[in-house]
Amino acid sequence: MSQYHPLTTEEAIEFVKNIPGFFSQEAHLECREIGDGNLNLVFHITDSESNKSIIAKQALPYVKIVGESWPLSLDRARIEREALQQEHYICPELVPAVLAYDDELALTVMEDLSSHTIMRKGLIEGNTYPYFANHIGEFLARTLFFTSDLGMNQQDKKDLVKRFINPDLCKITEDLILDEPYRFSDNNNYGAYIEDEAEALRTDQVLHLEVALLREKFLTRTEALLHGDLHTGSIFVTTESTKVIDPEFAYYGPMGFDIGAVIANLLLNYAAQPGWTSGEKALKERRDWVLETAIQVWEQFERRFRKLWDEHVTDHMARTAGYQDLYLQKVLQDTIGFAGCKVIRRIISLSHVADIDTIADPAIKEAAERLALSIGKSLVLRNRELHSIRELGDIVRTATAAQTKGA
Amino acid sequence: MSQYHPLTTEEAIEFVKNIPGFFSQEAHLECREIGDGNLNLVFHITDSESNKSIIAKQALPYVKIVGESWPLSLDRARIEREALQQEHYICPELVPAVLAYDDELALTVMEDLSSHTIMRKGLIEGNTYPYFANHIGEFLARTLFFTSDLGMNQQDKKDLVKRFINPDLCKITEDLILDEPYRFSDNNNYGAYIEDEAEALRTDQVLHLEVALLREKFLTRTEALLHGDLHTGSIFVTTESTKVIDPEFAYYGPMGFDIGAVIANLLLNYAAQPGWTSGEKALKERRDWVLETAIQVWEQFERRFRKLWDEHVTDHMARTAGYQDLYLQKVLQDTIGFAGCKVIRRIISLSHVADIDTIADPAIKEAAERLALSIGKSLVLRNRELHSIRELGDIVRTATAAQTKGA
Repeated sequence: MSQYHPLTTEEAIEFVKNIPGFFSQEAHLECREIGDGNLNLVFHITDSESNKSIIAKQALPYVKIVGESWPLSLDRARIEREALQQEHYICPELVPAVLAYDDELALTVMEDLSSHTIMRKGLIEGNTYPYFANHIGEFLARTLFFTSDLGMNQQDKKDLVKRFINPDLCKITEDLILDEPYRFSDNNNYGAYIEDEAEALRTDQVLHLEVALLREKFLTRTEALLHGDLHTGSIFVTTESTKVIDPEFAYYGPMGFDIGAVIANLLLNYAAQPGWTSGEKALKERRDWVLETAIQVWEQFERRFRKLWDEHVTDHMARTAGYQDLYLQKVLQDTIGFAGCKVIRRIISLSHVADIDTIADPAIKEAAERLALSIGKSLVLRNRELHSIRELGDIVRTATAAQTKGA
Repeated sequence: MSQYHPLTTEEAIEFVKNIPGFFSQEAHLECREIGDGNLNLVFHITDSESNKSIIAKQALPYVKIVGESWPLSLDRARIEREALQQEHYICPELVPAVLAYDDELALTVMEDLSSHTIMRKGLIEGNTYPYFANHIGEFLARTLFFTSDLGMNQQDKKDLVKRFINPDLCKITEDLILDEPYRFSDNNNYGAYIEDEAEALRTDQVLHLEVALLREKFLTRTEALLHGDLHTGSIFVTTESTKVIDPEFAYYGPMGFDIGAVIANLLLNYAAQPGWTSGEKALKERRDWVLETAIQVWEQFERRFRKLWDEHVTDHMARTAGYQDLYLQKVLQDTIGFAGCKVIRRIISLSHVADIDTIADPAIKEAAERLALSIGKSLVLRNRELHSIRELGDIVRTATAAQTKGA
């Protein structure tokens, strides 16, 4: 079966039956393909008798992200599988286990997480996740630290850099996040009612300079193995549990890119709140919780990262007094800058977020988009001057107050 | 013959005879092994009738750099050969052509440069090279630009990064240049008469912080394909011609590392001058020429790099007003910082330079070492505040004046 072809549900069942010790040979398995069909096939295979279930994910040799088909290397399935294995090794509680794989089929079989909800959906439904900042802070601190020159053998790290060279998927980020929102491009996608905002993005040279510097960091800094696409659609949650999935964009890049992705998606949800919350008090409380969670993501990351550094760094020079502070200041500034780029991109470029796109009232939706852009621009413009994550709160509240006043 | 073994001179002759169109089949070839035997065998093969000659370089599976044998991957021969080919493609006049190779034998056959002198030797002999800054500025500008995200397709660049992952040789730099001079290490090698200087290097936390930042850049910045070991022993010269050889340390790193290497080796020669120049006026003139050449290396690089940028950059964001200036300021600061590290290393760590080590008078030699360390430390300490290469001249002259006064 190993020559590449998109599997049928029958073939998927046959493949997982042969994984030693999971399903019994006599089990009566059912299989549903639950992917969106654009990038991957996702088979959900269950045994109703034993109540066991499993996910088999197979990459397709193209994406439909730009209307028509765009070829994408199947090697991304190997990269995603190896990244999952790395992340699971470092954070076993926070990443599903890989149970089997076949690189030729671009197929990875992993733990089923159907007891969890996609976090973006959970946030839109108004749920709170009291342990989320804690969990994702741990995921970020541990995966970024233990794959960096600070937390692993520096020669072995170079071999990891090699294994995670990921040109196809990096190009999507370079184009859609770090280039096209700032010029005319067929990939841009926004309503004519915010053409004034789009034009401002195209012509603001001070903003462009900051984006150019962030783009350079994305292109040249092999700080740590990144997840590469850590938005709230790549995170599964329950009230008590957090699981990170889908690292097909994994590559060695700047740490702030992953942390910024989480924060950006919380801020997009923040901007969308008037579309989901009724009552001024409820709106304020909900927003406060979302914003505080965004800030907590950084604080949980930083606290744990510093602890790992103090306990595990063996590099002599890295133990120099003051270096850790300078290092974290750089990561904070990158986090804020990339968060800004990611917020802007979700309004102007391809792949919007459901948090905003599903708002029914056009006026509220437009206001949410304008607020998101205002926050995103401020983060990009101010990234190199930030010295504390608490300034993020000030930036967001100032942008919100300005809009409320203008409305 | 292709299974790896160190070649005999007879085997080397046999290999090069089979290169189509170089020597005639009937030629009577002579072969001398002229390497230092520590890292590589170097066969110089000549045909006295046609007056043609050729170099065959074979990597040995170890180095004797630390007294006893230290195993080194033979893959470095492939990396050196591919780097030579890249550099020759970009700068055909400044890099010897590869005429044949055998990766299994770790063997590269290239143009013979025996009409040229090793630049370090030429400098010690008191020669001047009026075109050198021009030539090396062109080599640096073109190789660094055309292998960076500014001058080539950004997805193809990622594949080059992968091909030039070079853990063994990078470790030598990480240890000997960016770590061991700043602590006790068996690899350090200096006379007891400068123990006070060595102790100052071990205890200066402000200096360590700058070295930690430079080390981080060496470990994480894939800006361009570097030569990786661009000292005056890797450069062959005549009055009119410059050729760069021996890129076995090639890897993707920060541009300033290569530019800093050239400048550092000129500054080491500057510090050594009292050992070779008699008469105060001759000393002053010689030093002025060496220092001015070091400054010119940067200026020639910068002028050409800006021109290449203006003519060839296709990245939209990189064309933002002000970005080129910020980019070159960063490269300048890295250049100065790495130059400082490289000067310090040549006094305190393994692999000294003949410019200083061959000075017969112990007092002059010690003064040269102290001056070099003083210059090196100032460059490292001040790298992040430099805004013009002309400040390099001020730093060097101030250090020289302070020593003259102290003596």
